[in-house]
This record gives sequence, structure tokens and C-alpha cells, in this order.
Amino acid sequence: MTIAPTLPFYPQGYLSMAANIGIKDATLDFTVIYSTARATAAGTFTQSLFCGAPVTVGRERLVDGYAQALVINSKNANVATGQQGIENAGEITSMVAAELGIAPEDVLPSSTGVIGVQLPMEKFRQAIPGRLRAQLRPQELGLAAQAIMTTDTHPKCMAVRVGNAVLAGIAKGAAMIEPNMATMLAFLLTDAAIPAATLRPMLKRAVDASFNMLSIDTDTSTSDTVIVLANGLAGEVDLPAFEKALNDVCVYLAKEIAGDGEGATKRIEVTVTSARDAQQAKRVAKAIVNSPLVKTAVHGADPNWGRLAMAIGKCHEETDIHPERVRMAFGDLCVFAKGEPQNADLQRLTTYLKGKEISISIDLGIRDGCATVWGCDLTAEYVHLNADYTT
Amino acid sequence: MTIAPTLPFYPQGYLSMAANIGIKDATLDFTVIYSTARATAAGTFTQSLFCGAPVTVGRERLVDGYAQALVINSKNANVATGQQGIENAGEITSMVAAELGIAPEDVLPSSTGVIGVQLPMEKFRQAIPGRLRAQLRPQELGLAAQAIMTTDTHPKCMAVRVGNAVLAGIAKGAAMIEPNMATMLAFLLTDAAIPAATLRPMLKRAVDASFNMLSIDTDTSTSDTVIVLANGLAGEVDLPAFEKALNDVCVYLAKEIAGDGEGATKRIEVTVTSARDAQQAKRVAKAIVNSPLVKTAVHGADPNWGRLAMAIGKCHEETDIHPERVRMAFGDLCVFAKGEPQNADLQRLTTYLKGKEISISIDLGIRDGCATVWGCDLTAEYVHLNADYTT
Repeated sequence: MTIAPTLPFYPQGYLSMAANIGIKDATLDFTVIYSTARATAAGTFTQSLFCGAPVTVGRERLVDGYAQALVINSKNANVATGQQGIENAGEITSMVAAELGIAPEDVLPSSTGVIGVQLPMEKFRQAIPGRLRAQLRPQELGLAAQAIMTTDTHPKCMAVRVGNAVLAGIAKGAAMIEPNMATMLAFLLTDAAIPAATLRPMLKRAVDASFNMLSIDTDTSTSDTVIVLANGLAGEVDLPAFEKALNDVCVYLAKEIAGDGEGATKRIEVTVTSARDAQQAKRVAKAIVNSPLVKTAVHGADPNWGRLAMAIGKCHEETDIHPERVRMAFGDLCVFAKGEPQNADLQRLTTYLKGKEISISIDLGIRDGCATVWGCDLTAEYVHLNADYTT
Repeated sequence: MTIAPTLPFYPQGYLSMAANIGIKDATLDFTVIYSTARATAAGTFTQSLFCGAPVTVGRERLVDGYAQALVINSKNANVATGQQGIENAGEITSMVAAELGIAPEDVLPSSTGVIGVQLPMEKFRQAIPGRLRAQLRPQELGLAAQAIMTTDTHPKCMAVRVGNAVLAGIAKGAAMIEPNMATMLAFLLTDAAIPAATLRPMLKRAVDASFNMLSIDTDTSTSDTVIVLANGLAGEVDLPAFEKALNDVCVYLAKEIAGDGEGATKRIEVTVTSARDAQQAKRVAKAIVNSPLVKTAVHGADPNWGRLAMAIGKCHEETDIHPERVRMAFGDLCVFAKGEPQNADLQRLTTYLKGKEISISIDLGIRDGCATVWGCDLTAEYVHLNADYTT
């Protein structure tokens, strides 16, 4: 039994509840986060063609830039469930809205878990009307972080101060993670006052530099969602300071997800420098962090740097990359430069690779583009977890 | 100890030898295939930016459309070895040419194995001059197929008749396999007379429909090479019949490689129909066969078809794919159609998924593009094999 984490401080005006409503087993599977004041809101969602019903509903409801409550369940993703799935997401948000006395359009749904199974609606009908409101409490976001977990091994949350305001974030995600614009579930809550028109591009920039730099297994989820609510109760804040805080919280949560990838024993950080531009740097970094052969070599603490050469080499459309200008290093140990192997101290290299945080640096020697991405090692445990998930 | 396979028939005029020259351990690691008549030749090679020295050398030597001998070693790929690597490949082919009394430009080198280590040239210098010629024998291509293996569990070879001629093929490959134009090592030998200008496009078409439809782990090798030699000793043959034979042999060898992927327990065949065009069909099929979550579900015989939806969904640039027109089936069991789950018989589905050959069919309901690709399941054994390969 995980103990729900406590945050060091909380944004004003956010109440939450978390419960087990029996969707699959006896663990927490349902949470509602409610802002006492209507909040400006922005979101980024999966680019999957098979996006979940809650993504479809949430996207529409964020067009006006406002929201007041989030209702999230784990254990069932409500994906590939057709028109019935859309109606079910609508009914859940309507029940929450009625219970809280707010507009259904201001309630955003999220679901995560198995694909292709209709939600057990009776359980939601028993859990929400007449029961939800009394369970709402301040300072229980740690429980909400726990209720949205699937195969995560621990809840992921973070809070920082920005002037008089606080920005808190919770996230989940352990597999089916290679965001392509948005990613897994993450909810960011602040009592700062930020206009929706400012919040949207700010969130997009933060997501691009954090969750979009994350890959556990190259598989893009059908349910990826990041939402930020700003209820304004703490008043205005310095916008650049807030944007920095938003970036910091998103990067922290993204790294937490990388380190907690399914079956992971190590976090891998790949930094590519001197690329033609940031996009090329990201493509090369992703090719490395996604390579099963690099991921297994890191798992085995195997100083087989030839797999870095392989992974860079497979970016065959990047014809301005030339091996004789490429430099590769694990930590501060250079293994390849000037077109030749560099005889790095094998003992030190192996010791470094036995650590829990592996940093890989690639310099392409072209211009000044750079990017940092995060991932994890590939282990037998990933296979075990995923060979037997629904049954 | 594997027993080298015997082919049902052999093309005329090809002699070969296979030996252990001590590159890494005591297994076969060196083979030469020699055509008594100079042959027309064509090849396709990896698109890797970090291609091996033998690829660079082989590419240049095939420009004239002729070759007479192949020299191949396993256990060391001669990749990321700089100018010294190029010189080593040149020296090996020169020694072979001198020994056989042919032009060095007609000897094509290939190497497969670890990346980033210089070849142990002393061992080649001891093995070739004055020793090679006496070891050449007819009808020993099975031993050559064995000598080119790395982590393959069995040699892969095949022969078919085309009129009076024979086409034989040998191949190796078990990981670092997602060809992008060419793939792993495969050598195709025929005594048919085919002009080089005809052979080249014929090989490209055959490779596109076979090895380029194969993916073990999305990792593109630095050494992928397919070469065909046609020495003409059996005279001319019907060209369409020869092209069909070439396709059949390449598809057979590609499927053999898929089924023998590192750690694989099952072969997966994905067919996508009714796509906008063949390219779209291939992209979607590859997304499925490469998805770690699909591969692990197949491994666990888990009827979690939601992962097919996920894998199709992540092809987010294919905006003409609409879930309500997509049909998905395992074998002949439809699991999703018309935008809704189809309640397939779970018992039959699980029984089907416990087989060794898993066929996945996706109909996109757009136009008439189609493609079939091959891969394998992802197992804990793949992780074990690759977490400890060089050390």
C-alpha cells in the first residue's frame, strides 16, 4: 500500500476527493478535483487517431478557455468505445456538474486504463450523485495523484511558489508513452490569475520542452492529456516567473515518469548538441532513447557504444550528419570522436553504467541546435508486465 | 552444435569454404563464396549514416555490375573503425583476390558483429594466403549460411529451380533489424544468365517486398547487405519466372529471419488492406509490428486488441484513417469494426494467440493499398540477450 504524498504547499481554492468505486479492483480508481472559483484553463491532448472519448469531450470543452472541475478514473480508458463511450463521458461529467452546481461544460473528463471496454456506468451512478460533494477536501492532491495511477509504482506530484501563488502538478504514466504533441495524464493547478489566451501558448511551450521529450516505449497513448487550471484566487503574478515555474514542474513530472517507466531500473537522459537545429537534435536524441538495443545495453551496464553509432546512423534522412564530426560520451567519458573509437577507461565506463541515472551526450558538430530527452532502460520486467495486462 | 543444412540443389559454378579463424570464439566465423565464372551482380545496402567499412567498399565495387567472390566474417562488424577499417576491408579482399587469381574489384566484403573494434588482421593474414583455395568445395553453402550467423539460432538458406537454372539464397539476422532500403546479410546465387542492368531493379523490387517488410526491433543495422550473383553457366531463363523465384526466396528468407528474431517465440504477420496506397499500408503495418505493447501482448497470448487501436492511432499523420471505418482481426476473428468492439469469442481468440504464427489483419476502408510485414514477439529473452552482448 503506497502512502499518498503530501505537497509542501497547495494552491488556494482547490478541493479534491479520491475513492475506490470498484472499476477493476480495490485500489483508488476515481478522483474529482474542483476549483471553488471558475478557472481559466488550457490543455494539450494526444494526436492519436484513435483518441479516447474523454479526449474528444475535453477538447471541445476547452475551446472557451474555462473549466472548474476535473473528473478522472483509472483502470478503464474509455477508448474505441464508439458513440456509447462519448455518451458515457458526457453522463459522468453531467453527474459531477449537478452535484457541484456548476455547468457541465466546465467539467473535463479523463480516463486511463484498458482500451475497448465500456465503462461500468452503474458504479459511477452509485458513486457521484448525493455522495461526491461531502467527500471534497482541501490539501488532498496526493490522494488524487494516487487515484490516477495504472502501472505506476508511485504517485507523481510537485508544487512550487510563484510570488503569492502556488503551482501544483500531478501526473501518471508508465507505458504507451511517446507523446506526439501532448502526453499521458498531467494536471497542473494554480491560484495565479492568468488569462486563457496567455495560458495556452505557455502550456504548449512547457509541454514541448518536457512531456514531448519523453519516451518510454515509442507507443503513443490514446488518452494523453495535460490540463492546467488557473483560478486567480492569489491574484496576478510575474508572467515570466510563472512560465519558468510551469516549465520546471512539467520537466520534473516528465523525469519522474521516465524514471518510473514500466519495469525501468534506470533513467536515461540523452542530450544532443551542435545539431543543425533543435528539431534535428530531438530526432537524433529520440532515436537513441527509443532504441531497444541502446535501452538493453544500458540495462546490462554494457559499454557497447557501437549501439549509439547504430542509433544515430539510422536517422538516414539527416544527411548532414557525418561520422567523422560526431562525438559520443557516456557521462564525461568520451567513447567516439574524429571518426575513431576513443579508448575510454572500460572500468570507469562500466562503473558509470551501473548507476541509476545514465547521461548520454552526442555532439553532431554541425551548428547550434540542441535537445534533451528522457527515457528508461528496457527490462525483462517490462515484458512481463505487458505480456499479461488485461487477462 | 548446429548441423549445417543441405540444399535440395545448387547453382553451377559456385564453390565455398567456411572456417573458424578465431575472431571471437571457436564457432565458424569466416566464409568465402567463389564463382568460377565472373558473374553479373547487384546489391542493396543499409541506409545507415554510420555504415560499415565493407558497405562502403562493396557499394563502390558493384558500380560496374560484376563480381566473382564474396568474403564474409561474423563476430566483428568493422563499423565505426575509421580509415583503418576501410584499409582492413581492402586488404582482406586483396588477399582473397590474389589467392583466387581474380581482380580485387570483383571481391565483395561483408562483416557482421560488434561495432567499434578493429578487425584482428593477423588472423585473416594467417587464414587466407596459401590456404584458402584448397578449402573451396561445391555444395557447401549450408556451411556458409552457418558461418555468417551471429545470434541467429539456426542457419537460413533456400534454393529453387528456374528452368535449367537454380537460385540459392543464404541469410542471417536476428536483431538490429528494421531495414530501410536494404537489410541484414543475404546472398543470392544463381547460374542463370541475367544482365546486370536487369538484375539491379529486379533485386530492388524483391528486397522492397521482403526484407524491407521486416522488423525485429526498429533498429537499423550499420551493415545491412543483400547481394545477388548471376554467373550465367546455366544460360538464359524466363525473366518473369526468375523474378518470381527471386521474390519467393527473399520472402522465405525474410520470414525465416522474422521467426528467428532475438528471443522470439512467435512470428507475427501484419497485413493492412484498403489503405490509401501501398506506402500508407506499410507505415500502418510497421507501426503495429513494431509496437512493444503489441509485441508483448502477442507474447503473452493476451487478446488486448486495444493495443492495435493504439498502434494505428499513433500514425497521426494519416488523417484519412477514421476509426469508424477500420476493421481489425486476429486470424479470422474480427475484434473491432464500425467504430465498436466486436465481441469475439474470447476462448477462441486466446487459443489462436497461443499459436506460433500470429496473423493480424487491418482493413482501413479507404482505397486499395495493401502491404504485408513480418516481425516477432518481444520477450524477456530479447532483453537478456541484449543486456550482455559485448562483455
